[in-house]
Amino acid sequence: MSSILIRSVEWQGRPTDLFIEGNTIARIAETIDAPGADTVIDGRGKALIPGLINAHTHAAMTLFRGYGDDMPLMQWLEQAIWPNEAKLTHEDVYWGAKLACVEMLRSGTTTFFDMYHKLDATAEAVQEMGLRAVLCEACFDHFRPEEAERSRRHITRRYATPPPYGPRVRYALGPHAIYTVSGELLQWSADFARDHDTLIHLHLAETTVETEQCLARFGQTPVRYLHSLGILSPRLVIAHGLYVDEEEIRILADHGVKVVHNPASNMKLASGYRFHFDEMRAAGITVGLGTDGCSSSNNLDMVEAMKLASLLGKSWRGDPEAVTCDAIFHTATAAGADILGLRAGRIAEGYLADLCLIDLRQPAFAPNHNFISNLVYAANGSCVDTVICDGRVLMCDKHVPGEEEIMERASRAAYDLMRRGGKQA
Amino acid sequence: MSSILIRSVEWQGRPTDLFIEGNTIARIAETIDAPGADTVIDGRGKALIPGLINAHTHAAMTLFRGYGDDMPLMQWLEQAIWPNEAKLTHEDVYWGAKLACVEMLRSGTTTFFDMYHKLDATAEAVQEMGLRAVLCEACFDHFRPEEAERSRRHITRRYATPPPYGPRVRYALGPHAIYTVSGELLQWSADFARDHDTLIHLHLAETTVETEQCLARFGQTPVRYLHSLGILSPRLVIAHGLYVDEEEIRILADHGVKVVHNPASNMKLASGYRFHFDEMRAAGITVGLGTDGCSSSNNLDMVEAMKLASLLGKSWRGDPEAVTCDAIFHTATAAGADILGLRAGRIAEGYLADLCLIDLRQPAFAPNHNFISNLVYAANGSCVDTVICDGRVLMCDKHVPGEEEIMERASRAAYDLMRRGGKQA
Repeated sequence: MSSILIRSVEWQGRPTDLFIEGNTIARIAETIDAPGADTVIDGRGKALIPGLINAHTHAAMTLFRGYGDDMPLMQWLEQAIWPNEAKLTHEDVYWGAKLACVEMLRSGTTTFFDMYHKLDATAEAVQEMGLRAVLCEACFDHFRPEEAERSRRHITRRYATPPPYGPRVRYALGPHAIYTVSGELLQWSADFARDHDTLIHLHLAETTVETEQCLARFGQTPVRYLHSLGILSPRLVIAHGLYVDEEEIRILADHGVKVVHNPASNMKLASGYRFHFDEMRAAGITVGLGTDGCSSSNNLDMVEAMKLASLLGKSWRGDPEAVTCDAIFHTATAAGADILGLRAGRIAEGYLADLCLIDLRQPAFAPNHNFISNLVYAANGSCVDTVICDGRVLMCDKHVPGEEEIMERASRAAYDLMRRGGKQA
Repeated sequence: MSSILIRSVEWQGRPTDLFIEGNTIARIAETIDAPGADTVIDGRGKALIPGLINAHTHAAMTLFRGYGDDMPLMQWLEQAIWPNEAKLTHEDVYWGAKLACVEMLRSGTTTFFDMYHKLDATAEAVQEMGLRAVLCEACFDHFRPEEAERSRRHITRRYATPPPYGPRVRYALGPHAIYTVSGELLQWSADFARDHDTLIHLHLAETTVETEQCLARFGQTPVRYLHSLGILSPRLVIAHGLYVDEEEIRILADHGVKVVHNPASNMKLASGYRFHFDEMRAAGITVGLGTDGCSSSNNLDMVEAMKLASLLGKSWRGDPEAVTCDAIFHTATAAGADILGLRAGRIAEGYLADLCLIDLRQPAFAPNHNFISNLVYAANGSCVDTVICDGRVLMCDKHVPGEEEIMERASRAAYDLMRRGGKQA
């Protein structure tokens, strides 16, 4: 079992030693004597945080970064995104996901919850890059029975056996949204998730249009509609959840449903800004934080996402005490781990060794009156110096091995994708 | 006259050579033959932008970074900020401003518009660090004639002679706000600014409380109050301008008043979020962008400020086409220069050589479908590799000479300031 000793790293305001055995934090103390450690990391001038957990993204959409900004949502989807997504190959998704992994590591994310196409390609990328991920394939039936049947067959085949990628990669179900997936397929998915012990992830209550259509089609708002289908449960993780009223927050809380806030995406697509962060947490909902995909956000920087969530929450309420830096830091770490069912997101003995060292020798941490404040409000993802996931060092000195080639290959894949015509998948 | 040749830097999507003579951009061409250049910079893998212009800040407030976040405004000012500001020494402001200069250079800002106390200390810091700045001393009379008289004497003394710091440092007048400065002193300041050819800078229409108090005290809204005093002019630069109606936008435009948007500060202090960016620009107002001081923002990263301004503008309107990346980039560069009356903020022959090279070899620029989109939406200040101001290289390879000592000394000054009691100024 390999081991890592981190020496004299700032943690809770004091220099601390931390010893990792295998993939687990084995010991935390002022001084640890571990002469046989395989790797020793000098933590001086650095602070320790848990690896950040991006609880909603579409990793391979790095390929679409900056492609069609400042456009109305439907025009953007119909002209810029969907025609190109239809052409995506396994290879494209693989390089897009590898670039996403580089970007996440460089900004301190060790774990992500992904929904996209060609799941195997993303799984391979994650497996190679060393991060931890829960992956779901976006699933649609567009209210057509034959597509629903195809989805059921695909899901049954896909999830019949555990993923062949080792324990860092897990699957979940990803019915896309209530406007693309029928109630029957949603119910079938929820039953399948229960029987196969997986999470189920969908976009919900993201826009006013979605709410209006849901009212017109089903006579109720999105959360009440899901409730009436009987699929609310602690396995359910919804992305967005912007349009919920007080009673719906209560319903979500009562059923243990998790909610993931995506401030950058909601702001940039102008989906809405009134995310009820403090009310949801007060009601007992586990709230996570995500970046959404790079086509809408346009990066995977969870440090920036923390700042955006906090500033947005304060501003729309007119309350500078809303969404504190400590609350949002918890959301991006421990709460994310709770959502994904991981013993991670905290610095404690027995927890997974998914950690980052933050470089304190930069203006964002000078002076350092309050480390969490500086991390959330002053820094950005570039403050991350070292990343450890599952007990392995994946980045040190702000460099991920192979990152130059990955950026180059992924960029080339993106340019080729936009250039070539027709459907090639 | 010293010269710099930048070779093969990306500009407008093409590799370009740029030649600087003295403090001016002398030539831009595909290839420039300049065998006698004093300095040659390899621009490959980098993109060229004008140095960013932070049009509203309080530089030395770096000392207060992270000191008293998530607090209501008045409690924060009365408990965290004002008692410590009262103790500030020349030395404190000097180190705080030097830290600000390091932070600005590292995130691509070459010029800033500052309002604070102990102006000489900030001026010295700017002079030494090589940036360009327009500085004003915050001026208050609290509606007391004897304080107004003291301010008039101080201003007359201060501005009787040009600043002894060389052409990179200029002065402006800084009457703090309409709730701290009497109408008489505002009028006197406007006359003085006209007679001495300086800008005049004040906070205006920042909070609902300010508007309510202005209505109660003067029977009109802030912009109309200034109009009734007869002090609206092209010399006037107002920070914030959140609470203005359609007619007030017209009034500001008709008088050539400039407005500086500070999205991070407005959001974090929950001052408001409905900044009328597109309407002001459509009306012909020159709108600049600022970070405000680090006590409220909590950094001086203008790349981040561009993203915040754009996302905030899109989200509160519900319009993804609002505040485009190109518009906000113009705001942070050319418009800032126009506000300060500088021939800068643009890459063109004859303009000041205030420039940044952006490191394209990082995930934010992979792929690079649209450079300005990537800069605004995907990157942050850490993408800046090289900074040139006034024809001198102030940062290269993301390192500012002496930055370690400056961070150390400024941090120590901040800790000492919070620790020591009483009034020591």
